[in-house]
Amino acid sequence: MTAVYYEHIKTCKQSGARLGKVHTPHGSFDTPMFMPVGTLATVKMMSPDELKEMDAQIILSNTYHLWLRPGEDLIREAGGLHSFMNWDRPILTDSGGFQVFSLSKLRDIDEEGVRFRNHISGEKLFLSPEKAMQIQHALGSDIMMAFDECPPYPAEYKYMKDSVERTSRWAERCLREHEGNTTQGLFGIVQGGEYKDLRRQSAEDLVSMDFPGYAIGGLSVGEPKHVMNKVLEETMPHLPDNKPRYLMGVGSADALIDGAIRGVDMFDCVLPTRIGRNGTCMTSEGRKVIRNAEFARDFRPIDEKCDCYACKNYSRAYIRHLVKSKEAFGFRLTSYHNLYFLLNLMVNVREAIKEDRLLDFKEEFFEQYGFNRPDAKNF
Amino acid sequence: MTAVYYEHIKTCKQSGARLGKVHTPHGSFDTPMFMPVGTLATVKMMSPDELKEMDAQIILSNTYHLWLRPGEDLIREAGGLHSFMNWDRPILTDSGGFQVFSLSKLRDIDEEGVRFRNHISGEKLFLSPEKAMQIQHALGSDIMMAFDECPPYPAEYKYMKDSVERTSRWAERCLREHEGNTTQGLFGIVQGGEYKDLRRQSAEDLVSMDFPGYAIGGLSVGEPKHVMNKVLEETMPHLPDNKPRYLMGVGSADALIDGAIRGVDMFDCVLPTRIGRNGTCMTSEGRKVIRNAEFARDFRPIDEKCDCYACKNYSRAYIRHLVKSKEAFGFRLTSYHNLYFLLNLMVNVREAIKEDRLLDFKEEFFEQYGFNRPDAKNF
Repeated sequence: MTAVYYEHIKTCKQSGARLGKVHTPHGSFDTPMFMPVGTLATVKMMSPDELKEMDAQIILSNTYHLWLRPGEDLIREAGGLHSFMNWDRPILTDSGGFQVFSLSKLRDIDEEGVRFRNHISGEKLFLSPEKAMQIQHALGSDIMMAFDECPPYPAEYKYMKDSVERTSRWAERCLREHEGNTTQGLFGIVQGGEYKDLRRQSAEDLVSMDFPGYAIGGLSVGEPKHVMNKVLEETMPHLPDNKPRYLMGVGSADALIDGAIRGVDMFDCVLPTRIGRNGTCMTSEGRKVIRNAEFARDFRPIDEKCDCYACKNYSRAYIRHLVKSKEAFGFRLTSYHNLYFLLNLMVNVREAIKEDRLLDFKEEFFEQYGFNRPDAKNF
Repeated sequence: MTAVYYEHIKTCKQSGARLGKVHTPHGSFDTPMFMPVGTLATVKMMSPDELKEMDAQIILSNTYHLWLRPGEDLIREAGGLHSFMNWDRPILTDSGGFQVFSLSKLRDIDEEGVRFRNHISGEKLFLSPEKAMQIQHALGSDIMMAFDECPPYPAEYKYMKDSVERTSRWAERCLREHEGNTTQGLFGIVQGGEYKDLRRQSAEDLVSMDFPGYAIGGLSVGEPKHVMNKVLEETMPHLPDNKPRYLMGVGSADALIDGAIRGVDMFDCVLPTRIGRNGTCMTSEGRKVIRNAEFARDFRPIDEKCDCYACKNYSRAYIRHLVKSKEAFGFRLTSYHNLYFLLNLMVNVREAIKEDRLLDFKEEFFEQYGFNRPDAKNF
């Protein structure tokens, strides 16, 4: 048995969405699942206890950021990331690839790896498939990600094909570096942009290497929503049913539901905490910018249908006051609510799969949230 | 029976410190007590639940700040400050006087009150004894403070005498405005700077008005520690034994103990949260600047003798990493620890009073904290 494996429970007869569980060395989590992001070994504004209270079953952390500070050696010395940050449930770490390509302006990619400058200090750094594995081994995450090349969007066919092939060669090097590790599961990342044949090629390459799980990368990078759905539909048939599928960097309510319908099991995104720190909340009626003047004397909870800690105890007026005054507790409450909102959405999605009515659930949710309106915002 | 009253339990035979309870409409609190400061209807970084977890029995909030934002009308509409901020234990509000004198550069004091400019918007404002009462009535705090003049430190005798006399006249106007209110207790504030006879005059004036409690104002404004102690010793004999005494704006561990020894029952200060947000912690061995490099690989808790949430679950290395990365959770932990440290110090002070050994406790504490060292910092 591998360190990480998927248990399929059922498929929604109406939508084809999958209900399952992913088992890891630090316990299991239900799928489809949203994973809060704790970039620097902390989910911004939150405590681990609060994350448990809202039943976050797995969190994500970022290899690139932890490598730069405090450094993977320090975290190894602390007994690994779980011990360092006091989180005993599963952790997934990305490979650092995305940050190298998105944060570093000066970078030089060759077959060996990527040379670039630290986005904080300017120091010269080198990240390779082997190094990305070594860092994640030091962190001790339950699920590790292979080091991939993240091409720009949009990218020419030729560029993308070379990139997909390099990502496959890098995936093999990751697997070799990971050989013998029985306490962490390594997932491959399917790339290929909008190109159907390249997505297929990437998926088939990686599936032939037999990873315990597969991610779909290179989406949620600026493409329209219908493109994301199309790519998912074209990629999924090439992934095995008995492994989990993870759609990287996606956290808007509509995309979570649409992803689940297309067979995605795992999602992550900074969206709920990022917009929370800007005073914006996701609610059952769509988004609410709590800092707006209309909420100054509104003593109702953020979301009248929500039973989270923030909604049970605090009013829009109070939270607006805190947010306007830049008081941390205000951002704690908006972040808490938004994370709870997405975790609870996934509870409802799983329930709908169980009852073979995920398409009906989507219709109701989209209608109430406002996604069906002509002016609907894509978030 | 007044809304707020003092119950004396015992006097420490060794030190003369008082053990007691103050009863308010929202419950009682043990004295001597440290009160965390929640300037804008939130104790910075903290949730009300965390404050209860550390057994904060009363918090303070600031009339001036709440008047400016969100405004006392909005808080009245919310059902008062307790309901607005979800805190059901006692709240003390200051009068706004201190902020008018410390934050506003342009101000014009006359017998009627103080004209000044809003420190945020620059708008012209006027605060008087009557207005300070009206705002605090809207806030609904359990303990209100009279509107006093806060003279600069140091101040000439003549200036101070005029100021003390005006503060007494203003105190009478506060009492008149407060007449008929049976749900909030109004405390008078003794001023007089370093002048023994003026402190006596101020105390006698106010005591003749029969407030349910008295504060000592105008200390912790830059004077040396021995001056604070001297003023306390000279003022206390003129205050009645059956009323609580509140030393305003004091939050360093040594001053809390020295104050209790001189008969003080209540203290407040932003110090623990302010230095916490700067990555500095109070510990049984003195202060520790957690952001310092020496703690980078130190996996011990902030204070090895502390059993607070932060110390039970997180290391210096982790908290340093968070603080260096400006992650809110780091400042939550340092703030939590510092507040707990002072609340727990007062638990120990009360225990020592009960056992008639507060002077012994002081000696041990000062020795361990480092206050007895020649280079001891006054905090």
